[in-house]
Amino acid sequence: MKQHKMVRMVSAATAAVALLAALPSAALAQDGKSAADLAGHGAAQRIATIGSANAKNVILFIGDGMGDSEITVARDYLHGSNGTFDGLDKIGQPGALGDTSAATGQYTTYSLGNGSKDANNPVITPVTDSSASGSSWATGTKTYNNAVSIDSYLNPQLNLIELAKAKGLATGNVTTSEIQDATPAVQESHSTERSCYGPQGKTDGSKNDAGKRCKAEQLKENGGIGSISEQLLDTRADVTIGGGSKYFNQTAQGGEYAGKTLWEQAQERGLQTIENDVDAFADLEYQEDAPVLALLSDGNMPTQFNNMPAMSQAATIARGAQTCSTNEAWLGNKTANGNSASLADMTSKALDLLKANPKSDNGFFLQVEGASIDKRDHAADACGQIGETDDLDKAISATLSSLEASGELQDTLIIVTADHAHTSQIVAAPPAYAVSTILQSPVDGANIVVSYGTAGQIDPDADADGYNDGGMGHTGTQLRIAASGPGASRVSGLTDQTDNFYTIAYALGLAATTEAQNALSDNGEVTVNADGTKAAVTGFDGDAVLSYELKDANGVLAASNTSTPVSGVRVATGQTTNIALEGVQTNGTGYTLTVTGQQSGKQVVVTFDGPADNAGNGSTTGDKELASGSVKQTKPAKLGRTGAMVMGAVFLAAALMIAGALIVAYRRGAFNKR
Amino acid sequence: MKQHKMVRMVSAATAAVALLAALPSAALAQDGKSAADLAGHGAAQRIATIGSANAKNVILFIGDGMGDSEITVARDYLHGSNGTFDGLDKIGQPGALGDTSAATGQYTTYSLGNGSKDANNPVITPVTDSSASGSSWATGTKTYNNAVSIDSYLNPQLNLIELAKAKGLATGNVTTSEIQDATPAVQESHSTERSCYGPQGKTDGSKNDAGKRCKAEQLKENGGIGSISEQLLDTRADVTIGGGSKYFNQTAQGGEYAGKTLWEQAQERGLQTIENDVDAFADLEYQEDAPVLALLSDGNMPTQFNNMPAMSQAATIARGAQTCSTNEAWLGNKTANGNSASLADMTSKALDLLKANPKSDNGFFLQVEGASIDKRDHAADACGQIGETDDLDKAISATLSSLEASGELQDTLIIVTADHAHTSQIVAAPPAYAVSTILQSPVDGANIVVSYGTAGQIDPDADADGYNDGGMGHTGTQLRIAASGPGASRVSGLTDQTDNFYTIAYALGLAATTEAQNALSDNGEVTVNADGTKAAVTGFDGDAVLSYELKDANGVLAASNTSTPVSGVRVATGQTTNIALEGVQTNGTGYTLTVTGQQSGKQVVVTFDGPADNAGNGSTTGDKELASGSVKQTKPAKLGRTGAMVMGAVFLAAALMIAGALIVAYRRGAFNKR
Repeated sequence: MKQHKMVRMVSAATAAVALLAALPSAALAQDGKSAADLAGHGAAQRIATIGSANAKNVILFIGDGMGDSEITVARDYLHGSNGTFDGLDKIGQPGALGDTSAATGQYTTYSLGNGSKDANNPVITPVTDSSASGSSWATGTKTYNNAVSIDSYLNPQLNLIELAKAKGLATGNVTTSEIQDATPAVQESHSTERSCYGPQGKTDGSKNDAGKRCKAEQLKENGGIGSISEQLLDTRADVTIGGGSKYFNQTAQGGEYAGKTLWEQAQERGLQTIENDVDAFADLEYQEDAPVLALLSDGNMPTQFNNMPAMSQAATIARGAQTCSTNEAWLGNKTANGNSASLADMTSKALDLLKANPKSDNGFFLQVEGASIDKRDHAADACGQIGETDDLDKAISATLSSLEASGELQDTLIIVTADHAHTSQIVAAPPAYAVSTILQSPVDGANIVVSYGTAGQIDPDADADGYNDGGMGHTGTQLRIAASGPGASRVSGLTDQTDNFYTIAYALGLAATTEAQNALSDNGEVTVNADGTKAAVTGFDGDAVLSYELKDANGVLAASNTSTPVSGVRVATGQTTNIALEGVQTNGTGYTLTVTGQQSGKQVVVTFDGPADNAGNGSTTGDKELASGSVKQTKPAKLGRTGAMVMGAVFLAAALMIAGALIVAYRRGAFNKR
Repeated sequence: MKQHKMVRMVSAATAAVALLAALPSAALAQDGKSAADLAGHGAAQRIATIGSANAKNVILFIGDGMGDSEITVARDYLHGSNGTFDGLDKIGQPGALGDTSAATGQYTTYSLGNGSKDANNPVITPVTDSSASGSSWATGTKTYNNAVSIDSYLNPQLNLIELAKAKGLATGNVTTSEIQDATPAVQESHSTERSCYGPQGKTDGSKNDAGKRCKAEQLKENGGIGSISEQLLDTRADVTIGGGSKYFNQTAQGGEYAGKTLWEQAQERGLQTIENDVDAFADLEYQEDAPVLALLSDGNMPTQFNNMPAMSQAATIARGAQTCSTNEAWLGNKTANGNSASLADMTSKALDLLKANPKSDNGFFLQVEGASIDKRDHAADACGQIGETDDLDKAISATLSSLEASGELQDTLIIVTADHAHTSQIVAAPPAYAVSTILQSPVDGANIVVSYGTAGQIDPDADADGYNDGGMGHTGTQLRIAASGPGASRVSGLTDQTDNFYTIAYALGLAATTEAQNALSDNGEVTVNADGTKAAVTGFDGDAVLSYELKDANGVLAASNTSTPVSGVRVATGQTTNIALEGVQTNGTGYTLTVTGQQSGKQVVVTFDGPADNAGNGSTTGDKELASGSVKQTKPAKLGRTGAMVMGAVFLAAALMIAGALIVAYRRGAFNKR
């Protein structure tokens, strides 16, 4: 048995932030950069030279699709044109939270990838989807529409929850959408396809939608890192609250939990799980090492207000001014037991759970999404989007109360923004082209005409019933971003969505740069268990994916799939990642296990003999590890984040052709459940 | 002859600003305020308690209709999605102008007035026009669409150029539109109808458009304060540059210059005039007491780029990606003599003229409008709006260079914003509902789809030719405002358009509050000339309109029309205002002339006898004034700004019915041409 000495390297992260903070002025972003120029980690930053301040906690509120128009529609209706959101309008408002630093600005949201779901041959795409935009702030990397925290060449990019976990912070992820939807997904997973909700994709068994499946190379049964839901369980945020419970009824087809539903897997992995039960949700309390996974509806959560479908010009005028009504199915309504699960309730619960978690002594990162502002805007539903904006506003208010109560308001950076702008426009009168709705504000009595005109095709039923069923699209305008708390000034002026990643990462002291992230794997260690069947990997927090290869004198005995950047073993950040080994004989000798971080290139090589001399052997688990080793070398990264992009793209094209034929050595089972 | 002692009062303006600056925090605007609540001067402020810093100069750049979408469309095309405007993106950008204070925010732009051009019975109107929005920042008062620096009850509200003149600053007004268009007009005039361009309205004689006429009560021949162009000459900004020269060919029908064209009037009043001559414009230099009026095109100025009409979905797809081409008629193209008049050229000229003016030792206020961003957006013309945004951006760049050269960059507050948002949206693909254009950026190669869908009716020719002729409308979303320089932080967070008035007024130390403005008339003085035919009024800078009444023992001899708030004598702010008297007899006795500021209520009463004992008499002008007096009393304002609103509205309705029958005592002639 050989033991390797661990080599510690000083992390560059803290030093890099301090250096940046000292630089006096901003260089404006350069014109005419190509998509290839912009595809690298951090390459699209506009304010790379602007420093930050340290915050203990960061809370990021995302109104999905909540452009300035959506904010104004909701304010006009709910509070009057002169009115004020109680929460949303306090963030970024000087003086509104005492002497807390406050700033507002705009950011650009364009994406890459040819305006389509294709990663190859990227060009600049002026209109982003939620996955590319979410990836921007979650990872600091511009990518293509449909990408979930991977870059334009499919390389996984570390996200804020992973980086926060690497630093020992408490983490949370709250949404009103399916928890696998793009905005929450970018903090949980790395996926080449945003519909890769579960092993069977975005399906609940009721229909077979081939377009909403995982790409083959990412499936565990093909040696991939698994679906979004499976990776959510690997990432193991301390608090996860949202919808999409039905996708956890899917069954894993590969890996340690093959044959079990994702709910079963979650429970076996020690999570506190809640499935569609608001009362049980209300009773949740912090339990040590038992993260919360509360999914309160089968799909997206019901909205606060009932649908108010937009209509053609004549029909809108005939219908006249309307008001919005509360949806009985909304989870913010009280149950028989007096409980509710509005976004404000969910956010308050998340904060309670995070604060009770000892890790929050180091601080926490929490993302809260009001998801259905976007979804109702797509559906040309003015009341729907207004109610969801209200729900987000109240979640912000609840957060301010909670932080004030715990004395953390001054230590917490709160950011409110959106992922992209959307369709709805406030116009003077129902337009001829678009469909619209006239709403009368119950607060100031103003008639507000909300118009929707971006759909790719006219609803075929619109003539008959006057209604439009939606299909409206995102828009590409720069967006409002507002912040209060330490480091808030970094959102001022014109920034890019990727700058938001750096704003948050700097405030929390996370590893923001590629170098700092690579350094998170400097302390990688691999331990082979006593019977040679499993290897436990720790300290590879600078990687999202590991590869391994087990050899003896005769050649390769077992190896991970390395055909694509999402093939291999998903790293459980800040935890132990398990690799099942195959081919070690009790009396064998001269085994070499090489484990490589696919992002950092950091490698651990462990050489060992079979367990014949171990106290335990044969079918029982030994009580003594065979071998362990630590990082001593860095492999030139074949699939590294930025260095090998062009090669990666060429390689990928070839790899995808042969992926189906590969023999996958990764198999079920590992000796540590997390 | 009786002479009254002048009573000086300490101006409350400076003290008020200092008090506000000392208040620590902001109260958020209150929900549910009614239109009546919001109609008062300053009543719609969101950050009334936030102080400012002193700036020597303020330059306000308005991109008409330049919402975030219009900014992004232009940036995407001209600079690439990741690119940066050289001027526009520097304002509000921390670090971009050294250590100058910088901030960005959003402001609300709603107006009052029942969504129509009616002033009476105002309700809140979510979508503003350019006149109500311009009035907001020019005067601090929310008003109705169509109002030019008057409130919802038609009361004139002092604008920034008037207030800057009252403080002895140099002033300028630059636009690419007709100089009488709403955005420049709000700084020149007070009008109940935005089409009241000249005595004959917005007409050039080629057609008789009854809807584009002045309202009768405002016409000089009816005892009114006159059209926008006539008031422009009264206001007498030091520099006025724009289009709309043809309206100066109209002939005054009342007042001192009745029977003369407005060009003749301008020349008689000592202005340097330029009519459609770029070379003469380029040669302009500062001359003492000879303000510049340079109108370089008959109507709105030609745009930089040729029209690119939007088309229906199928036609847009068939046409494919387009690029924009330069318009040969654009004044930014060089003349044979190598001169040009882009907005950047006009702005540079304005700055040169202002800096050469000794008044600029006290500072200057300059408004610069890129007007046709709005106009081309109305026309669904993507190239048009992009070129105009470019022109504005370059005007900002030129300003930064000019201020840097004169060492005034640190002393100048520069604000960039818009008056309202507009139609254009960046979408992923040509939509079915709206008309659109695909542009390919020559800088980064991205295809940008710009969509327009707010028109009230579908272009009847659209089916035949695929083109749409426009008619798109404004939108009501909150807007970006950005600022650099002393006091810039006041634009941070959520503000209202009326807050911008206070931001500018505080920075320059102008009279911002009603009280401070009223105090500007504390030093009002009236002098009756030697032959009793004229009165010269000075020091009524807190008023836009004066009334007068001349009596003897037998009753009223002459009086101004006081039937509406825009009836009476227009104050020439910071100058001498002349009133023609009628009925004073050489040997008469016991005359009483009362002059009242219609906004301040300040009154001067002069009692005098006829000129029989004067050195000069009869038909020759005497060398000794008959009498003079100063303010000793304040009349409860019947038509005051806020105190008498409801009464004003009732009074107005009655007054309008009888206005036509009134005998107007105001007649031509005065003894001082300004």
